[in-house]
Amino acid sequence: MEQWLKDDERLDYLLAEDLRIIQSPSVFSFSLDAVLLSRFVSVPLQRGNIVDLCSGNGVIPLFLSARTKANLIGVEIQERLYDMAVRSIKYNKLEQQISMVHGDVKEVPPTLGIEKYDVVTCNPPYFTANELSDKNASEHYAIARHEIHLTLNEAIEASSRLLKQGGKAAFVHRPGRLLDIVTAMRENRLEPKRIRFVYPKMGKEANTLLIEGIKDGKPDLKVLPPLYVYNDQNQYTQEVSEILYGDKA
Amino acid sequence: MEQWLKDDERLDYLLAEDLRIIQSPSVFSFSLDAVLLSRFVSVPLQRGNIVDLCSGNGVIPLFLSARTKANLIGVEIQERLYDMAVRSIKYNKLEQQISMVHGDVKEVPPTLGIEKYDVVTCNPPYFTANELSDKNASEHYAIARHEIHLTLNEAIEASSRLLKQGGKAAFVHRPGRLLDIVTAMRENRLEPKRIRFVYPKMGKEANTLLIEGIKDGKPDLKVLPPLYVYNDQNQYTQEVSEILYGDKA
Repeated sequence: MEQWLKDDERLDYLLAEDLRIIQSPSVFSFSLDAVLLSRFVSVPLQRGNIVDLCSGNGVIPLFLSARTKANLIGVEIQERLYDMAVRSIKYNKLEQQISMVHGDVKEVPPTLGIEKYDVVTCNPPYFTANELSDKNASEHYAIARHEIHLTLNEAIEASSRLLKQGGKAAFVHRPGRLLDIVTAMRENRLEPKRIRFVYPKMGKEANTLLIEGIKDGKPDLKVLPPLYVYNDQNQYTQEVSEILYGDKA
Repeated sequence: MEQWLKDDERLDYLLAEDLRIIQSPSVFSFSLDAVLLSRFVSVPLQRGNIVDLCSGNGVIPLFLSARTKANLIGVEIQERLYDMAVRSIKYNKLEQQISMVHGDVKEVPPTLGIEKYDVVTCNPPYFTANELSDKNASEHYAIARHEIHLTLNEAIEASSRLLKQGGKAAFVHRPGRLLDIVTAMRENRLEPKRIRFVYPKMGKEANTLLIEGIKDGKPDLKVLPPLYVYNDQNQYTQEVSEILYGDKA
């Protein structure tokens, strides 16, 4: 095991998919939001090319590898997280399907290929650079959570440049940014088609937004059934439990 | 009773509020959507001025009269519906609180008063003039349902003109028009602040959208808990039943 891990890293389970993922509590741990996005996005089953922007330790490509045989590319700006993702991919013997790119989302489209991809996913930083909600956290967390190196508009623009006409972009964000997201999507030829709001439990306001658009698609928005994370006993609902743990729940 | 009713009209109950309302199946019947809007909108309790645009037979002002002591004005372009609303208001002895205006929403703001109102509600026509979903229906229904005399943009523009700074506009519409609504609201200085999606039952897509904005408000959108209309036994949920029937359910 030691050959795979550095410092305070550990090898966590992605139970639903029988995969393992390298994480470090002091640097980055994947969130439920990333897992929900990798389940929400529409992917081709047999072939195609998919890019995950702001990939972190690669949790979305790892999850997607269980849903599709398409080629998967993850883009991550932080070398430490990029390196963790590369090792997780090797550990799971998925080098043939998943590759990681260490780079800046704003700059990678020409390198990866303009209008070449069928699907782009992105779990971008949620907070503006000004919001000081976790100014005491590590720089790794700050970059992953705040729009320090990448704004929402830049993430959406890069997604659109990568996508073929008819390709799909899926994002996860906070409901408070809904209007900014749909405005930026339309400005970048991504027509919103499916929205799903995630509620921590029944009776509470939504705290997460899943949205998918089609490049140059026709306006026809659907608002899917709500997704609840916890039940009244503060346990994961059956839907979330199955996403996280699969049949092993 | 006959003194109040014409033709095939009948005097229906607004059970939750101990009110009666004149309806005619061949002309217009109020919808659940209007009732949900009159419960959703934020209103001052003691004083203020409220306008309901596209008021139909006056169901929203009638419902609101049980929630607020503010002055209520309904605007309706169809004379037959305007006339039904006037008689319902008289029947319920609410002439002191509710007045009806027979006019075109696009033209009434200067008459009613620019930037004079605290709250505007509007349940506008849902379908574009081209959509022929009920071309066989009566002209009364066609005008109420289709953007023949009033587009969504025009309804939102009129609402904003009537509102004071800090005043609230609340609309009900189809989720497929969400992007058009929020775009038009922002273009007319109405910042969306609260959204609630209405689902016919659990597991189904939303079929109705309630949205409230504040004139010149700061961006801070909340997505409220879902509202389900029917339970698994195809009966009204407790929430909807209480809105419709009050404690008499």
